[in-house]
Amino acid sequence: MTVIHGGDVYRNQVEYDFSINCNPLGMPKGCVRSARDAVAECGKYPDPFGEALCAEIAAKEGVEASQVLLGNGAAELIYALAQALRPRKALCLAPCFQEYEEAVKNVGGEVVDWTLHREDDFRLDPDFPTRDWGGADILFLANPNNPTGVCVDNGLLLAIARACEERGVLFCLDECFLPFLGDEQERSLKGRIGDFPHLVVLRAFTKVYGMPGLRLGYALCASKDLLRKMRDVLPPWNTSLPAQAAGRAALRDEGYLRRSRLVVEQERKRLVRELQEGLADWVCPSQANFLLFYVNELWPGELGRALLSEKILIRDCSGFRGLGPGYYRICIGTHGKNTELLRRWRNLWQNRS
Amino acid sequence: MTVIHGGDVYRNQVEYDFSINCNPLGMPKGCVRSARDAVAECGKYPDPFGEALCAEIAAKEGVEASQVLLGNGAAELIYALAQALRPRKALCLAPCFQEYEEAVKNVGGEVVDWTLHREDDFRLDPDFPTRDWGGADILFLANPNNPTGVCVDNGLLLAIARACEERGVLFCLDECFLPFLGDEQERSLKGRIGDFPHLVVLRAFTKVYGMPGLRLGYALCASKDLLRKMRDVLPPWNTSLPAQAAGRAALRDEGYLRRSRLVVEQERKRLVRELQEGLADWVCPSQANFLLFYVNELWPGELGRALLSEKILIRDCSGFRGLGPGYYRICIGTHGKNTELLRRWRNLWQNRS
Repeated sequence: MTVIHGGDVYRNQVEYDFSINCNPLGMPKGCVRSARDAVAECGKYPDPFGEALCAEIAAKEGVEASQVLLGNGAAELIYALAQALRPRKALCLAPCFQEYEEAVKNVGGEVVDWTLHREDDFRLDPDFPTRDWGGADILFLANPNNPTGVCVDNGLLLAIARACEERGVLFCLDECFLPFLGDEQERSLKGRIGDFPHLVVLRAFTKVYGMPGLRLGYALCASKDLLRKMRDVLPPWNTSLPAQAAGRAALRDEGYLRRSRLVVEQERKRLVRELQEGLADWVCPSQANFLLFYVNELWPGELGRALLSEKILIRDCSGFRGLGPGYYRICIGTHGKNTELLRRWRNLWQNRS
Repeated sequence: MTVIHGGDVYRNQVEYDFSINCNPLGMPKGCVRSARDAVAECGKYPDPFGEALCAEIAAKEGVEASQVLLGNGAAELIYALAQALRPRKALCLAPCFQEYEEAVKNVGGEVVDWTLHREDDFRLDPDFPTRDWGGADILFLANPNNPTGVCVDNGLLLAIARACEERGVLFCLDECFLPFLGDEQERSLKGRIGDFPHLVVLRAFTKVYGMPGLRLGYALCASKDLLRKMRDVLPPWNTSLPAQAAGRAALRDEGYLRRSRLVVEQERKRLVRELQEGLADWVCPSQANFLLFYVNELWPGELGRALLSEKILIRDCSGFRGLGPGYYRICIGTHGKNTELLRRWRNLWQNRS
């Protein structure tokens, strides 16, 4: 764990955190209640198998309970996958979530970049499945991608899954942000794990249910052998009792995701429009609950630092491979929170020297 | 994670759980309160560095904050140590906590057993430091040992630490149960990590503060290089926000440990006496908050299963290397809980065929 992430409200003075990609509605009330109640039960160990939660996830996702593996956040599952497989060479998009690379390097593996280009809106090339993958034995792909928010088209995604099977390449598909999209069901490969034994789908309660402090994610995979290998490298009782309880409560909250998608879609449109009207040079056409943008020309200084002086934390993306200075990411907040961002940002803009 | 542990109240009907070695007093009230309050904050990520908690642990333990590494339970740190070092050969006592072996085997390492003997009360041989360790590059030792509850004498422990330095063997010293002993301060090597760069001391809030459901442990080590390697294999945000909050509250509760030690000492003496008076054939002279005993002759059936029919869960130790059928472990409960155990056990005993 050496990557610097967003969300560092511990070493910064922050009123509004736009640096983490969590649900703008916050944790569902039922989750808070269940996790609070579970604290009183913490004299017990958590169920090491998380049987009840796995069964409920399986029912919701349309898979077998034995195809679900719980993680202390999806991040733990990325590390477990790398430790279980010890890949020699991983193919990662640039830019993408940095923990894939970190996890692979920690087990002595090499990372091959597949560079995405801003002139293509950081979209994956349609001929990707037939191209040379540089001898990679694992492919990490997030749909939608982070930090761009750009999705892979359904046809292309299936072609990639097929290519992975043909080439014997492990396909780690990170769908942590997919539930924010209205067409999640059509876009997800979770229902196809039976067809693709090399496929591991990652999902997280963290982002979708706004509970990053509790740590809970899961992997879906049809290969018993691979899941067993991952389970073997995980410590016992890796998910806490409050996290398991919150997860079960989250799955019972029917309306929450629907409401979340509405807010995200409405507010993303608004933020894109506002950013395009003089706040940013370029805005990535995100389909997710966050926006990548570029501001170097309009704001030659460091926008992140300037906004931090206004107690707003955004994600500086200059350190992502394939990006550079001037790239930033913000999550989509509630209407009021976004209004504050826009107000303080415009203030900065008007007072530029 | 393939070892079967105690505490499985999820797949058993249990009224009194004696199978897990946690504080009989339960989680301190301040911990429950802090963890509950922290749940409402879980829209934030936890501090990935756990800076505030590390500083408070360091102050209490008399080490530098940079010498503290937090884990999602001590179990995670055992796995991280194995993954960071990838030892070829680990020396483990038999019997001992089974996760050391599990963690080492998962990274392809071999385990060399150092067999302890019941005729010595499972005490470590005084000439252990000068003997052949079979080419081990890591030594796992718990003080007191689990499941025996037997301590290593101070002089012997120091000789082992010195031998590890001379031989270049990593010394993982698990002190998770040591705070239950009145003479913890004299027995602990935590204050000596500066003298022994090969020493990693493990500690857990889980057992001492009765919060296994929350998952929190830490490692103390003076080798910056080793701690960095361990941190590298750990996923980001490995300890949850409620766990960090509960840990901080625990450290502020001055009287709790004192009260716990009194209860444990009093009740251990009582249980030993009662077990020796016809309930068990042999009771291990434990100094810890749990008791290992042997019952094969008095109770030729399976005592664990018989007690479970009385809704009491104890730890069957037949699977521990160096033990076998007839060995069981119970934790020291409160006076009332222990009374229930003794009552139901005696009932069984009287109704034996």
